[in-house]
Amino acid sequence: MAAEITLYGSYLSGPTYKVGLMLALCGAPFDYRHIDLAKGAQKAPEFLALNRYGQVPVITHKGQSFCQSNTILTYLAETFGQYDTAGEARWRAHEWLHWEADKLMPGVARTRFFTKFVKAEPAVAENFRKGAEGALNQLNGLLPAAGFVLGAAPTYVDLALYATCWQTEDARIDLSGWPGLMAWMRRVEALPRFGKPRDILFKEDHDG
Amino acid sequence: MAAEITLYGSYLSGPTYKVGLMLALCGAPFDYRHIDLAKGAQKAPEFLALNRYGQVPVITHKGQSFCQSNTILTYLAETFGQYDTAGEARWRAHEWLHWEADKLMPGVARTRFFTKFVKAEPAVAENFRKGAEGALNQLNGLLPAAGFVLGAAPTYVDLALYATCWQTEDARIDLSGWPGLMAWMRRVEALPRFGKPRDILFKEDHDG
Repeated sequence: MAAEITLYGSYLSGPTYKVGLMLALCGAPFDYRHIDLAKGAQKAPEFLALNRYGQVPVITHKGQSFCQSNTILTYLAETFGQYDTAGEARWRAHEWLHWEADKLMPGVARTRFFTKFVKAEPAVAENFRKGAEGALNQLNGLLPAAGFVLGAAPTYVDLALYATCWQTEDARIDLSGWPGLMAWMRRVEALPRFGKPRDILFKEDHDG
Repeated sequence: MAAEITLYGSYLSGPTYKVGLMLALCGAPFDYRHIDLAKGAQKAPEFLALNRYGQVPVITHKGQSFCQSNTILTYLAETFGQYDTAGEARWRAHEWLHWEADKLMPGVARTRFFTKFVKAEPAVAENFRKGAEGALNQLNGLLPAAGFVLGAAPTYVDLALYATCWQTEDARIDLSGWPGLMAWMRRVEALPRFGKPRDILFKEDHDG
């Protein structure tokens, strides 16, 4: 039987990992469709019908499709009632996801891309690496000494931030100067059903 | 009598304009507090108490503070019931705001910054200018020939995108190759109570 949710993505994509991590932690079975980014499959007409922006990840659920990893996490949290927020915390979560998109993601993701996939001009690479380090330093200062970003319970905000911080390994950014950040990452990794991309995503189509 | 809403921002800040534009179009009076970014007022302890990230804009409303311009627009739309979305369109709006944060804002805002305020190394400036042009080209292709981003009625998504597109003037990005984008901007500018930053924001503290 087909799973209720299909995830379209790539095992090489940080934003796909965000969504895969959320689905794994929620214990939600999902079908997986590999989108070959190197071949431009994300710009093919059949994929653009799922996502007008031509990017991974996308999920389909009950005949609707959803794109933008932070939107998908918010939707899944509401849909499953897991890792969700309530009341005023909903706005704090919204703010955090936009901080992540504005400050954390660009520097970390571009630095990973330039390190792992395609070299950039040195001045451009340095600009994004500095941005990444500034954002990681800020995050380290904002994280609580115990618990999670919005309090004692983990939420989809932690998963969004974690999946981006995970990219620092490929980006060769050393986190050892930020012990609070590292301790929080270990707390996320201790959540039941946690996995790295290799544990959660697939290299080809897969039925869940 | 003090207005219900106070906006903390800078007349030079694109994200502050987003929020000012929303408040203006909703006909909502607001008190304004100028945050002098050149003097680092956004990093002062009393401002960090309003916004942990140390950025403008911020609004306060009913004893709560809200930051991240796209979050504030979403909150105001829900609060006023104006320029709002409903049902599935709520998710489309969420996706658009994240596309704006990911693709449109960085290129346009950094290009404006490098053009108007502080010069960057040529390779860095070129990287962001190319990003801006790619995103504006994509937006031009996605906009409908009539009406607004999510249908016949304008929503806060149009205002978020518009305020970022407005920054192309200072960034010296020529929009004439994208007539669909320019026509949509004229439709936003025709909305009742529309104003440019000089019409809406203030250069010093102001009671609304």
